[in-house]
Amino acid sequence: MNPAAMRPSDILALGARADAMLDELARISAEPGRLVRLYLTPEHRRAADLVAGWMRQAGMVVSEDALGTVRGHFSAGASPDDAKAPRLLVGSHIDTVVDAGRYDGPLGVVAGILAVDHFSGGGQALPFGIDVLAFGDEEGSRFPSTLTTSAACVGAFDPATLGFADRNGVTFAEALKTYGKNAQDIPAAAYRRDEVAGYVEVHIEQGPVLEQENEPLGVVTGIVGQSRLRVVVTGEAGHAGTVPMELRRDALAGAAELILAVERIAREHAADRVVATVGRIEAAPGAVNIIPARVAFTVDVRAMSDEVRRSAVEQIEAEGWRVVEARGLQVAFEPFHEAVTAECDLTLQNTLAAAIVDLGHRVPPRLPSGAGHDAQMMAKLCRSAMLFVRCRGGISHNPAEYASPADIGLAIAALIRFIERFAPGRA
Amino acid sequence: MNPAAMRPSDILALGARADAMLDELARISAEPGRLVRLYLTPEHRRAADLVAGWMRQAGMVVSEDALGTVRGHFSAGASPDDAKAPRLLVGSHIDTVVDAGRYDGPLGVVAGILAVDHFSGGGQALPFGIDVLAFGDEEGSRFPSTLTTSAACVGAFDPATLGFADRNGVTFAEALKTYGKNAQDIPAAAYRRDEVAGYVEVHIEQGPVLEQENEPLGVVTGIVGQSRLRVVVTGEAGHAGTVPMELRRDALAGAAELILAVERIAREHAADRVVATVGRIEAAPGAVNIIPARVAFTVDVRAMSDEVRRSAVEQIEAEGWRVVEARGLQVAFEPFHEAVTAECDLTLQNTLAAAIVDLGHRVPPRLPSGAGHDAQMMAKLCRSAMLFVRCRGGISHNPAEYASPADIGLAIAALIRFIERFAPGRA
Repeated sequence: MNPAAMRPSDILALGARADAMLDELARISAEPGRLVRLYLTPEHRRAADLVAGWMRQAGMVVSEDALGTVRGHFSAGASPDDAKAPRLLVGSHIDTVVDAGRYDGPLGVVAGILAVDHFSGGGQALPFGIDVLAFGDEEGSRFPSTLTTSAACVGAFDPATLGFADRNGVTFAEALKTYGKNAQDIPAAAYRRDEVAGYVEVHIEQGPVLEQENEPLGVVTGIVGQSRLRVVVTGEAGHAGTVPMELRRDALAGAAELILAVERIAREHAADRVVATVGRIEAAPGAVNIIPARVAFTVDVRAMSDEVRRSAVEQIEAEGWRVVEARGLQVAFEPFHEAVTAECDLTLQNTLAAAIVDLGHRVPPRLPSGAGHDAQMMAKLCRSAMLFVRCRGGISHNPAEYASPADIGLAIAALIRFIERFAPGRA
Repeated sequence: MNPAAMRPSDILALGARADAMLDELARISAEPGRLVRLYLTPEHRRAADLVAGWMRQAGMVVSEDALGTVRGHFSAGASPDDAKAPRLLVGSHIDTVVDAGRYDGPLGVVAGILAVDHFSGGGQALPFGIDVLAFGDEEGSRFPSTLTTSAACVGAFDPATLGFADRNGVTFAEALKTYGKNAQDIPAAAYRRDEVAGYVEVHIEQGPVLEQENEPLGVVTGIVGQSRLRVVVTGEAGHAGTVPMELRRDALAGAAELILAVERIAREHAADRVVATVGRIEAAPGAVNIIPARVAFTVDVRAMSDEVRRSAVEQIEAEGWRVVEARGLQVAFEPFHEAVTAECDLTLQNTLAAAIVDLGHRVPPRLPSGAGHDAQMMAKLCRSAMLFVRCRGGISHNPAEYASPADIGLAIAALIRFIERFAPGRA
C-alpha cells in the first residue's frame, strides 16, 4: 500500500488502533483512580513489558538498555549490510506526571510501533533500520532530574544523578538496582554517531495553537530553552499584632513584589515568546499571626532564544536585588536546571511538512515547543524533528488531556510517509 | 511585709524565683531542641501538673475544668463568708506556639502563683478570694481556634469548635476525650458574674514600645480587635512552557497583587495603628512547571478601632474583587476569626499604675496590646486589666524571647501591690 494514497478509512483505522493501545497503557497505574506511572516503578516495568510485546508483534527485535529504555529494532531492507546502515530513531516516553493524561509520551511510542508495523506488514523496503525507543524519565516526576534516559542514549548521562533521591528517600541508583539494572552499563547505552541517521518524535502539542488555527498537525521548529531558579527571600519574623507596618521586614510582601516582577518581565518580552512561571511557594514559619521570615519560590523561564532567556533571568535577579534593598530583606537565587534551546533540523522539518502535504493536507503550521522533550536531548546526537498533534483546549498533565483518534491516525500516516521520504544519506 | 516598702533585693528575689519556674516549665516540650507545647497534648498535661503542684505549695486548692484550665483557689480572709466573696482572677496561658519562647503565657501564671504565695506566706488578709488560672489554648497553635479555654470560663465556648481538626486530623472533641475530659461538662466551667470581681493578667509586651521608652512595665489600655480571613484565589492550571503570558489565569500572580494591596491598605491607615499580615500561603498544584490554579492565604487585620478595622477589611475585599476581575480569576473571602476590641477597665488600669508608683517608680506608660490575650475574652465576664513587661527587641514567638528577672520581679511586686489595693466592691 502506498501511504500517499492512504484512504481516509485507513487513517481512521490507524487512529482507532492507536487509541486502543493508549487505552491499554493508561490502565497501568500505581493508583486506581488516576494515572501515575513513575520512572523505575513496578508500573514502569509493566508498561515496558507491554510495549516490548507490541514491538515484537510489529516485527522488531527488542532490547532494554541500562536505564530501562525499551528499544525495538526493525530492519526491512533486502541487503545483508542493513544491520550496519544508520538507523532512524523514533521515540517518546512512557513515564507520566502524577494524575496524568493518556497521550503525553505514550502517543509517540505507539505511533512509532504502528509505523513500523506498517512496513513490517508489507510496506516498501527501507534502506535504513528503525529503532523505536520508549524512554522512561522524561517528566522528572520521581527524581529531581529529567531526560536522563534519552541522555544515556546520547552519552550525556550525568553520574551525579545516581545520588538523587525521590520523595521517599530512595536514590536513583537504588531504584535502578531494584529495577534489575546495573549502573556500570550506562555508558554502553549511548548510540555511536555513525549508527544514527536522525530522530523523530510524535507528541501532543500541550498548547492551544493548533486548535486555534484549526490544524490537526504542526511541525516543531525547536524546543525552547529553560532556566529554573529557586528564589529565597529572607526577612524577619514578628508578631502580626505588635510590629508596626513601618518596622516590618516581611519576606512574603517582598516575594509578592518579585513574583509580579517575574510576570511583568516576561510580558515585556512577549515578542520573543518569553514565558515565566512561579509554580511553587512556601512561607515560613507559616502561621496566621506571624510575619513571614522566609519565603522560597521557584521561577521557570523559557524562550526560543537562549540570549533572550538569559537576559530575562538577569532582569529578574536585578529586580530581586532592588526589591530586597528597598525592603531591608535578603535574597538568594539558586539555579537548579538549565536547558539550552534545541533547534529542530530544517531538512527533517521540511520532510515532515511534505509528508503531511502528501496526505492531501494544507502545508502545516510550524511552531516552537514550549515544553521540554526527549527530542531536545536527542538533538545532541543527531538531527532531530518533532510532529505535534492538536490536543483539546491545549490541556496536558491532566486527566482531561485529549487528542482525537482521527488526528492521531493522521499523525501516524504522516510519520509513515515521513519514513518513506527519509533519506539517511543527507544527514 | 508591706510590698510598698519592698526592698530591691526582695524584688530581685521574686524575679529569680519566677525565672527558675519559667525555666522548669520551658523544659516541658514535645521536641528536644525547641519549645513546642500544644493544647491537650502530653506536654500540656505535664505542664498543668507542674503548675498545679506549685499552686498547692502556694496554699491554693486546685481543680481543673472541662477544657483543662488549671484553677488554683486561694482564700486568705478571716471571715467564714469568704468562700462566697467575689474572687479576683489572675491568669494567663501555658500553651505555646511552635518553637516558642519561655515567657509568652507562663509568665502570667507564675506571677499569679508567686503573688498568692506572698499572701499565703504572711501577707495581709484579703477581703476576697483569688483564683489563679492557667489557660491551655491561647495561641491557637493546634486547632484553628483560639481563646477557647478562657471562652469556657466566661460561658462563651462555641460547640462548633469540637469538630475542628488539627493537622493530623484529630478533632478537638477527640483530643479532649484523650485528655480525660468530658465535653458535656464545658458549660459548668463558666464563672457566674456574681462570683467574679475582676481579672488581671501579667504578660510580656511582645512589642518594642516599653524598651524604646526605657520603661520596665506598662499598663494596657485595651486589646486590639482582630479579623482573620482565608482568601482563596482561583485561576486555571496550565503548562509553564506552552501557555502564552496573555492567555494565563495565574492564581499566584493575582494573589501576589492582593498581598501587596493588603500591605498598602494597612500602611494607608498608619495613623489608626492598623496592621495587616499575610502569614500563610499555599499554591496548588504546586509544581515548578505548572501555572498555579489555586492559591489560599490568610489575612490577619488588627486595629484599636473596630470601625477602622472593618473598613480596612472591606477595602481589602474590594481590592480583591478588582484584581480578580482584571485577571479573569475568582476570589472567595472566608472570615474565620473575629474579635472585637476589648477596652481594659479604667479603674483597674489606674490601680495598676498606682501600684507601680507605690513601688517608687515613675507613672507607667499606657499602651494598647496588638496581640490577642485571654484578657480580651475575660472582659466579656468582668472588668479586666493587663500589665505588660518589657521584652528584649520586642521579640516573641521565638526562642530569642527574653524578659529580665529584674523586670519580672518588679511586675510581680506590682501585681502584689495591685491585689492589696484591689477593691472588689467598686466593680
